[in-house]
Amino acid sequence: MRTNGVNEKYITGDASDYEKFEHWAATVPYTMRNPLYHWSHLELRRYFGVEELLNENTAKKIYDTCTASLQTEAFRVQPLLEKMNVEVICTTDDPIDTLKDHQALAEQELPYLVLPAFRPDKAIFIDAPNFNAYLQALGQAADIEIQSLGDLLAALETRADFFHQMGCRLSDHGLEQMYAADFTEEEVDKILKKRLAGKTIFAGEALIYKSALLHYLGKLYHSKGWTQQFHLGAMRNNNSRMMRQLGPDTGFDSIGDYSQASALAKFLDRLDNEDQLAKTILYNLHPGNNEVMATMIGNFNDGSIAGKLQFGSGWWFLDQLDGMEKQMNTLSNMGLISRFVGMLTDSRSFLSYPRHEYFRRLLCNMFGDDVEKGLLPNDIPWIGKIIQDICYHNAKSYFNFCKP
Amino acid sequence: MRTNGVNEKYITGDASDYEKFEHWAATVPYTMRNPLYHWSHLELRRYFGVEELLNENTAKKIYDTCTASLQTEAFRVQPLLEKMNVEVICTTDDPIDTLKDHQALAEQELPYLVLPAFRPDKAIFIDAPNFNAYLQALGQAADIEIQSLGDLLAALETRADFFHQMGCRLSDHGLEQMYAADFTEEEVDKILKKRLAGKTIFAGEALIYKSALLHYLGKLYHSKGWTQQFHLGAMRNNNSRMMRQLGPDTGFDSIGDYSQASALAKFLDRLDNEDQLAKTILYNLHPGNNEVMATMIGNFNDGSIAGKLQFGSGWWFLDQLDGMEKQMNTLSNMGLISRFVGMLTDSRSFLSYPRHEYFRRLLCNMFGDDVEKGLLPNDIPWIGKIIQDICYHNAKSYFNFCKP
Amino acid sequence: MRTNGVNEKYITGDASDYEKFEHWAATVPYTMRNPLYHWSHLELRRYFGVEELLNENTAKKIYDTCTASLQTEAFRVQPLLEKMNVEVICTTDDPIDTLKDHQALAEQELPYLVLPAFRPDKAIFIDAPNFNAYLQALGQAADIEIQSLGDLLAALETRADFFHQMGCRLSDHGLEQMYAADFTEEEVDKILKKRLAGKTIFAGEALIYKSALLHYLGKLYHSKGWTQQFHLGAMRNNNSRMMRQLGPDTGFDSIGDYSQASALAKFLDRLDNEDQLAKTILYNLHPGNNEVMATMIGNFNDGSIAGKLQFGSGWWFLDQLDGMEKQMNTLSNMGLISRFVGMLTDSRSFLSYPRHEYFRRLLCNMFGDDVEKGLLPNDIPWIGKIIQDICYHNAKSYFNFCKP
Repeated sequence: MRTNGVNEKYITGDASDYEKFEHWAATVPYTMRNPLYHWSHLELRRYFGVEELLNENTAKKIYDTCTASLQTEAFRVQPLLEKMNVEVICTTDDPIDTLKDHQALAEQELPYLVLPAFRPDKAIFIDAPNFNAYLQALGQAADIEIQSLGDLLAALETRADFFHQMGCRLSDHGLEQMYAADFTEEEVDKILKKRLAGKTIFAGEALIYKSALLHYLGKLYHSKGWTQQFHLGAMRNNNSRMMRQLGPDTGFDSIGDYSQASALAKFLDRLDNEDQLAKTILYNLHPGNNEVMATMIGNFNDGSIAGKLQFGSGWWFLDQLDGMEKQMNTLSNMGLISRFVGMLTDSRSFLSYPRHEYFRRLLCNMFGDDVEKGLLPNDIPWIGKIIQDICYHNAKSYFNFCKP
Repeated sequence: MRTNGVNEKYITGDASDYEKFEHWAATVPYTMRNPLYHWSHLELRRYFGVEELLNENTAKKIYDTCTASLQTEAFRVQPLLEKMNVEVICTTDDPIDTLKDHQALAEQELPYLVLPAFRPDKAIFIDAPNFNAYLQALGQAADIEIQSLGDLLAALETRADFFHQMGCRLSDHGLEQMYAADFTEEEVDKILKKRLAGKTIFAGEALIYKSALLHYLGKLYHSKGWTQQFHLGAMRNNNSRMMRQLGPDTGFDSIGDYSQASALAKFLDRLDNEDQLAKTILYNLHPGNNEVMATMIGNFNDGSIAGKLQFGSGWWFLDQLDGMEKQMNTLSNMGLISRFVGMLTDSRSFLSYPRHEYFRRLLCNMFGDDVEKGLLPNDIPWIGKIIQDICYHNAKSYFNFCKP
Repeated sequence: MRTNGVNEKYITGDASDYEKFEHWAATVPYTMRNPLYHWSHLELRRYFGVEELLNENTAKKIYDTCTASLQTEAFRVQPLLEKMNVEVICTTDDPIDTLKDHQALAEQELPYLVLPAFRPDKAIFIDAPNFNAYLQALGQAADIEIQSLGDLLAALETRADFFHQMGCRLSDHGLEQMYAADFTEEEVDKILKKRLAGKTIFAGEALIYKSALLHYLGKLYHSKGWTQQFHLGAMRNNNSRMMRQLGPDTGFDSIGDYSQASALAKFLDRLDNEDQLAKTILYNLHPGNNEVMATMIGNFNDGSIAGKLQFGSGWWFLDQLDGMEKQMNTLSNMGLISRFVGMLTDSRSFLSYPRHEYFRRLLCNMFGDDVEKGLLPNDIPWIGKIIQDICYHNAKSYFNFCKP
């Protein structure tokens, strides 16, 4: 909307809901060739039965139709999820989270699971201003006073145990690039104590600390049989003015051009070398690194389970037609797409499930085109099996989620 | 021609014009799949009505036909521009340029505008051997003796004022990568004085100076309502032998693999943060950075005008079928192609306008393919409007050029 | 197979040949969209006449058929090579190799040539633990005691002379990135002596030494009229556990994201500037660098022979449908594909020649598609000539191999 020249008032400002919708509706025709165009119409159609195209002329009618639908029982969250045949939802949670809502949901009889995922970014970013305050909160959550590296790791393990009991089988990290410097336990302990004492940490020290934490966490995830996920390459909060106005993570991020290969190889190798490399999914934000990622996973797939190391689906800016096709073509050429656990979306909207349909359609198109061109045999049962595996069975057996 | 094994004599050497043409004609069939093949035939056809393919057999006949045409009144520059419906031409000029030719043209009644663009590269490259001599010439042009940073900025502003009076609404910079180091005015002033005193500047000092100059110029451009352009990523003059023989910028350049994201984000943010970010176009020379550029502009589009930040059209090596398609697909997926100001060419030839036709054909193909595949609705009036906007109206309203 | 969840026992372990084949056969259907799927079936078909698809059901029958074929005279190496119309094979050899097998083959009346290629990587990697031992072996092979840079270069030249007599016209280097630091002969001599004395070499010294060796070798290759090849960008031996278990170069490598442009330009320019730049082929492993490579060769093509500098065919991970198409499209857009010396394969298998057919089919498809789309004239004789040149004649005249 900003790119289309819409004033902030009608985006995050004090305009009415309808005014904002109206400006969005007027923008939609200008989004042709952007995924928003397909997503918006697919959501309108699949959930609301709206088959008209959204634009400034249809805005009022569609707004009224959707508003009416949203008042009905069928548009509460649980029926929406059931309508989409959702089996599992993983939320992203800080280790200090009490998971009270998960507990409440676990006590209901629901046709799907809602499970936590473990995202301890704040324990890693030792150079963040609120790091010490966060460690205090983490200590309280784990009932451990954190004064050393040992305390910190114990606290993280306590929380991971609790998450595990609540059904957690996944961790997640968002990093510009992997950290994999050499370190000794003593060094890391000293750096942490320096920081806890309120002293300034140098960049080199922060790197050592972060590298160590990621390694220790990797071992923790392996010990619990979890899958570790890494989202690599975002450059965040690039607009200071909007950061002041709207806060962090409000849409002013972009794709970075960080170097990835060396540190990533070292990180994975160090865990593998100790036989403690967990199932791992690497999500890449710079499409120029797709081939680096797709060949990296090949180094550590060890036959223990099919597709142990995964090159994750097109993510964030790449969660669109070209981005997903490039990820799948690269994975096909440099690995086995047949063992791919498929699409995930971090859209965080209950109405975003048609994006999975979108992914499935792209996937079917790719195999279908290959059959039409004679690049693959016209073996619909087998290709159908591969596609069903990618869309459902691979993820089911890979993650092995269960009711806590 | 060099790649085709043609001796330098027939390229830049002392062979006759016809001999050179003949060698070029013999090379043309070997350029199939290179844009030169399409460009050459399109230029022959659109301007000279030559429909035959150029090769060694047709060379003489085509040479004679074209030579005859070139003697006629219709092939003088002004009729050629009129034939192509040109409305505005922007030249690229050094701040010290007197713009006498622009003045002369402005006094004629022409159906198109010829306007200057401001390219102060020489004031930025403090590490160039002729920097001090350049600053002296700049001082003379601005009637200011440049002895300090203040003097330099005043001189640049004086020249920018004059360029503005002459209709200039555009600046341009050619950089390997953006410079965005921290600086203070005092530091920069000291570095400049050191250089003016003939002392050696260290790399770190040059970086600080360049970062400051780009920032000050960015504010200057914003104050005048100009659009600032950055051409990023070329690695120039790679062949020392030909540099000695033919001089700089004679075709021995290539695509660099510089890091772009961080410094670019910092540069743009620093201006935006002071509410002084001008309309900006980023031209990228490394296609692997397309996604970095396309998501970078999203951070700073603020709704003030549609498409304030632009990801520029495929440039130089990328000004060809695949390069332009990649740029447009990336922009489509990560921004709004509907707000794109479209093609520019830096071909510097009066016969190169068919490249705009080439661009328009690619653009139409992309939307047309999407309609045929069912990816877009078959709404020819609307899609036609978007295409006309990209080809004409967007640029017209974005740049807002007018007769000086 | 590891990615497909197959245990190492059935890959490199102690399972029987048939068990290993059976697990491979069961994996093949899961390799759809990976080049292994096409390669495997093309090899079965072209050599063994097997038209069935390989999978766990057909494994036994196909194994038996192939095993029976392999016992016959027609499946000895020489008839296999003849069947594929092979004219020249270049092996990759260390300078210390005696080339006894080459000598033996040269004495036979064969319808093809088997020639050595010169790969002195071990003389360059001064930081490798076995460097001194290698230099001793090299000295023995050349009958020169290596105690200085002069000795080393003399030894390399002696071996290159011998290789040349044996028909060698090609060198090859495998590097993460090009080395092109400044150096003086004195410095390099000192660094070498330090290393020979068993002292530790610093990273900066190693870089200087490697840069110098590559430069001196480049001049040597030029003096002999050879073609020098550089394979750039692999990140090798990333899995320490499998390195211990299986040794180096056993399939645990990946695509690196090294910076390439600056050092490569400097390396080539330094040789060109002394008029000693040999014919050169650059093989790139990171597809994001394709454009860097394709424009780099343009800087140094000097008209002396057509396509003197070559952007090499898709290599290793890129030796597949998408990788080869991207390389050819980039070369087309930024150079002359018509002067391309075409496909090579480093598969090191006597049954891998259908990969050349695969390449030729892709190449034909690309030109054919362009003709169908109207992007090229329907001039089959000329386009056929270009394709034949790329597939055969260009390489023949470029390398100019002959019986020693």
